[in-house]
Order: sequence, then C-alpha cells, then structure tokens
Amino acid sequence: MSLEDRVIEFAAEIPPFDENAAEEARRRHLGLTKPPFSLGRLEELGARLAGMAGECPPPTPESPAVVVCAGDHGVLERGVSPWSQAVTAAMVSNFCTGRAAVNAIAKTVEARVSVLDVGVDSELERHPLLRAAKVRRRTGDLSRGPAMSREEAARAVMAGAGLAKELVESGGVDLLVTGDMGIGNTTPAACLISAFTGSPPDETTGRGTGIDDETLKLKVNIVEEALALHAPDAEDPLGVLAAIGGLEHAAIVGVILAGAVYGVPVVLDGVVSNSAALVARALASNSAEYIIAGHRSAEPGARIVLEYLELEPFLDLEMRLGEGTGGLLAVPLVQAAARTLTEMATLEEMGFG
Amino acid sequence: MSLEDRVIEFAAEIPPFDENAAEEARRRHLGLTKPPFSLGRLEELGARLAGMAGECPPPTPESPAVVVCAGDHGVLERGVSPWSQAVTAAMVSNFCTGRAAVNAIAKTVEARVSVLDVGVDSELERHPLLRAAKVRRRTGDLSRGPAMSREEAARAVMAGAGLAKELVESGGVDLLVTGDMGIGNTTPAACLISAFTGSPPDETTGRGTGIDDETLKLKVNIVEEALALHAPDAEDPLGVLAAIGGLEHAAIVGVILAGAVYGVPVVLDGVVSNSAALVARALASNSAEYIIAGHRSAEPGARIVLEYLELEPFLDLEMRLGEGTGGLLAVPLVQAAARTLTEMATLEEMGFG
Repeated sequence: MSLEDRVIEFAAEIPPFDENAAEEARRRHLGLTKPPFSLGRLEELGARLAGMAGECPPPTPESPAVVVCAGDHGVLERGVSPWSQAVTAAMVSNFCTGRAAVNAIAKTVEARVSVLDVGVDSELERHPLLRAAKVRRRTGDLSRGPAMSREEAARAVMAGAGLAKELVESGGVDLLVTGDMGIGNTTPAACLISAFTGSPPDETTGRGTGIDDETLKLKVNIVEEALALHAPDAEDPLGVLAAIGGLEHAAIVGVILAGAVYGVPVVLDGVVSNSAALVARALASNSAEYIIAGHRSAEPGARIVLEYLELEPFLDLEMRLGEGTGGLLAVPLVQAAARTLTEMATLEEMGFG
Repeated sequence: MSLEDRVIEFAAEIPPFDENAAEEARRRHLGLTKPPFSLGRLEELGARLAGMAGECPPPTPESPAVVVCAGDHGVLERGVSPWSQAVTAAMVSNFCTGRAAVNAIAKTVEARVSVLDVGVDSELERHPLLRAAKVRRRTGDLSRGPAMSREEAARAVMAGAGLAKELVESGGVDLLVTGDMGIGNTTPAACLISAFTGSPPDETTGRGTGIDDETLKLKVNIVEEALALHAPDAEDPLGVLAAIGGLEHAAIVGVILAGAVYGVPVVLDGVVSNSAALVARALASNSAEYIIAGHRSAEPGARIVLEYLELEPFLDLEMRLGEGTGGLLAVPLVQAAARTLTEMATLEEMGFG
C-alpha cells in the first residue's frame, strides 16, 4: 500500500462521535449541584468529551502530552522572517533541555513534552524527548515549486500519527496538545488557510514573530504567488499539503488524525495547528469532532480557521508563540470539564431532587 | 481599638506595588527565547506578579487556596431567588465532602479548599475544611433596613483576613482565590456595584442562578429600593458594606486585603467577588494592584466592575456559578506567567543575544 493510501485508510478509521453520550452528559449536568448551565462553556465541553470517549461521564484526562512538530522551510529564503533558520534547531535543543516557554507551561499543567523532527535542516543530537523522523531537510520554496512531494507529505503525516499512537498506546497519554516549531512556518499556514477557506492572503497572512509592514507585504505577495502557482484543490488535501504546506504542518495533521482514531481529545495550539486542522478535516470530516480549540492566536489566520471550523476558542490571551503554549494552557479547562461531570454530587443525592 | 479601626489600620498596611520589579520583568521578557511579546497577556501578568512580590522573576505560586466565604441573606424573603435558604448550608456540606464544582476544579489545579462560615443561617457540623466564624445568622433584609451593623461588617472582614493570613503564614499558601456561597447573594452584589460605580440597578442586577423575567424585575426594584433607603456613601466603604452588603462579601473584602498586605496575589472569582473588590479598593486603593481578574462571570455586574477597576479578565467562559470556580480555572495562567519568567532560557544564553 502506498503511503498516501495509508493516510487515507488511517483517516477512515475515526470512530463516529457518540451523540448519545454527549446528550447524556447534557442531561447529567442539569441534575448536578449547581444552577443549570452555570458552568457555562465547560458544560458543552464536557458533553463533547463524553461524545469523543463514547461514555458519560467521560474519563478525566490525567496524562496530557504536547507534541511539538518541527521543520524548516525553503520559503524562508525569500525573507518572510527576520529570524534565521538556525533558530529552529536551537529551539529544538531548548525544548530538550527544558528551557523554552513550552516546557515552563507544560510543567505548570503537568504535561509531557515530546518533540518530533520531521524536517529540521540540521543534524540534531539524540535526546530522550526528541523523536527523529526527518522526512527531508526542510521543504522546497513553495513560492517556486512544491514544498514537498505527496509521498513526503504522507510520510510526515504518518510520523505525527505514529508518535501520537505510541504516546497513547504505550505512554498512557489521554490528551494530546499540538505544537509547532519552524522559522517561517506561518507562511505555509497562511497558504493552507487561504486554500481551504477561500479567504484572501491579505486576510490569512499575519506578522508571525512580529515582522514589519514591508515584510508583511512581501509575505502576502508570496502567499498569493504560491496560490497562483499551485492552484491548490481543496478536494485533494494531501496534494495541497505537499504543494504549499510544511513538514511540521503535515505531522500535526497526523497527530490530529491519531487523536481522533484513538478517541483522545486533541487540543489545538495556534495558527500552524489551526491550518493543519483544516487539512485533517479535509481528509476526514469527523476529525473535527475530536478537536478542542485551546486558544485563539493573535495571528489573523487563527480567527479565520476557528470560525470556518465553528470552533470557539477557550482562551484569547493575544499569544502568538506556537510550540503548543496556548493549547497547553487550556488543558486544565478540559480536565475540569470532565471532572465536574464525574465528581460532582447530584441534587437528588443532596435531597434537592 | 474598635473593629472598624482595625480594618482601617490593616488596609493601610498594604505595601506599595514595586514598579521597578514589574519593569524589570518586562525587560526580562524581551530577552527570553521567544519573539518579543509573543506570550501576549501572560507577559504583563508576569510583570504584575513581579510588582506584587517585589522581585523579578517573581516566585511561581505552588500552593494555591480557594477561600469560599458563606453567608445567608435576609433579602431572600423578598423572593429574589427560587432557591431556598437551606441550600447555602447544604452546599457548605457539599464543599466539605468534596463533591461540589469548586472541589472538582480545585483538584484539577491542585488548590486547597477552605470554607469560611461568616453568616450561614444554620448550625453547621464541624469539619476540617470549615472555619467557623459566624458573625450572625444571615443578614437583615437590606431593602428594609441595614443588612448588618458596621461592627458586624468589620468583624466579617477581619474573619476573612484572619483565615487568609493563617493560610499564608502557617499554611504556605502563595496564591489566594476568592469564592462565595450564599443563596440570594447577587442582590447585595448588585447593590454594592451600583453604590460604588454609579451604574443603575437595571444594569448591575443579573439573573443570578437563572431567575425569570418577572423575578429579575422584582430584584431590580429591590436594589433600587435599597439604594434609595440607605443612600450609600462610597466614601464610607464599611458603612456601605453594612447597609447593603453581605457577610460573605465582607469576608471576601478581608481575603483581598490580606492577600495585598502579605504580597500574595488574589485571583477574583465572579460577580460577588467583584463587588467585594470594589469595597476593598475603597478601603485601600492599592489593594487593586494585587488583584487578578480570573474570569468574567456572565452576570452583567461583573463586566461593570472589571471595567471600573480596569481589570481585563483572563477567562470568559459564560460561567456564573460562584464558589471560586471561575477564579480557580485561572490559577494555571498565573503560575505559567511566573514560571516562564523564571525558567526560560535567554536569547543570550542560546547565543542569539
């Protein structure tokens, strides 16, 4: 079987969301010791968790993990970011030594950090936190040709899915958070968002790490060029990913699909994860049922994707760092949504039934 | 010294916010391994924590506690809530046995739960989680006379402050979350909010546990009556509290003041806590420097207070349960804001300085 076929087959394995379990959770909430609906959005989140797990109450996630997918980008040559490509590898090393933002936030919410190299353009030292699955050393310049081949895209998807599967099946992980690292990676994110939502590049392209007006203009032009060059067909998600995506975007697609296949909720981080969610949805529409929008990144494309996918973010803290930082901060909300359903007394038990 | 004088003296002990430490934190953020400002609102929160602690980086809170202040309300007789007064005591018992929403959420963020009875209208069984400091059994009906005497208000304030002091000094608590329980307590909250902000009762009064249109109209009328009867003078905060407040509101004022006095950040829960923050601010304007708006309750008065105090809430999840539930959910954000300042590598350390 070709790698592409394996992706398609894997995406088809997602079990249906259990609407009965979700409905049972909504009913259960009405009988708990609180005014009806007073837990606000946590209640519907709890119902969604029940639907994902296929049982009510849903299990409370106790072992979250963030998967930080890393890759480099040929389009960086065009000057879309002031940061040098070497920063990607340096930050991977920073993740491994535990001194990046993602580590501090993961420690706060007691999440495991797992780093996946699918395309960093340097030889990385081995490290227990780092999974080496380099598909190629950075992508091609998507404004001048395809970022990668379809097979490479499929390979990166399966690398993300494979690591997620291992975390879930051997590591006991019960909540996945997506993360990304890759200097230049908001350019392919903008391309993917325009390709799948139809929103124009000047709306989907943002300042990423904080570029100036001139660089932003260049970046918008490059996204426009890429779309014109490849004329991406949203009906062919792997083709779109190969033409204008990134290796870490592809790996995140795999993490999302694996979460959905194994019934583990996936908390999305910012705009790169958001763009990957569009690809996952195009591959398997029901993958979106397993996604929780952890936060809304300050990047303009984030809002566009979340509205398109009809996902309301849980946090809106003007963050735009990536790495999984924003997604991790939503982990306690997910845990609280499940735990209230599980541990609260009912009005009946208290004699107020 | 009278109890009133003790409150005034205690409020005067709040140390000045350390603007230098806050500024140092802002500078430090610029040199950490991330794009400048990419942690969004966490960065300014970290700077505020540094200012509260008087050092940069600020310590990461490791031992949060929620103080759930409980009391009953004479105004309930007027029919402002469909829930019976007995529910207050039943919920206190639910907190003690660990089966309320506040317990499930406190467990999620690893916070201690401490319950303070300053005015529940029944004999409560002793319990390790419950501090008995009943000032009186429920307040008087604020629409027909003062809710309590000035001395009672001061006593409830000092009860809250005393418990908070003990948690901090003997219990090692380094982050306080305010919580409330008291059937009918959004009526005095609305009274306090109108008295201190000048907003009219039809804007400050909400549906609380979820009352219908007719009951809401009655509730607004009662708040109007109370304001007309007492003509509260915002320059006399203890007088306002005594006339139109509640015992748990007063206790929360004490928790806020104690946090500020001992340099411990105070995360506010919903509208009852918000209304207490107005009293605390009137007693000591710099108490607001130590307050973090955990979330914005769905109650309309919450928005009015937060805007008045110029506090931007961190969460907005349409919650309106009280108990400290919304405030607790913001605890990991506070911890992450401190921890990133402490544990992240600098660009210089990574050779990108």
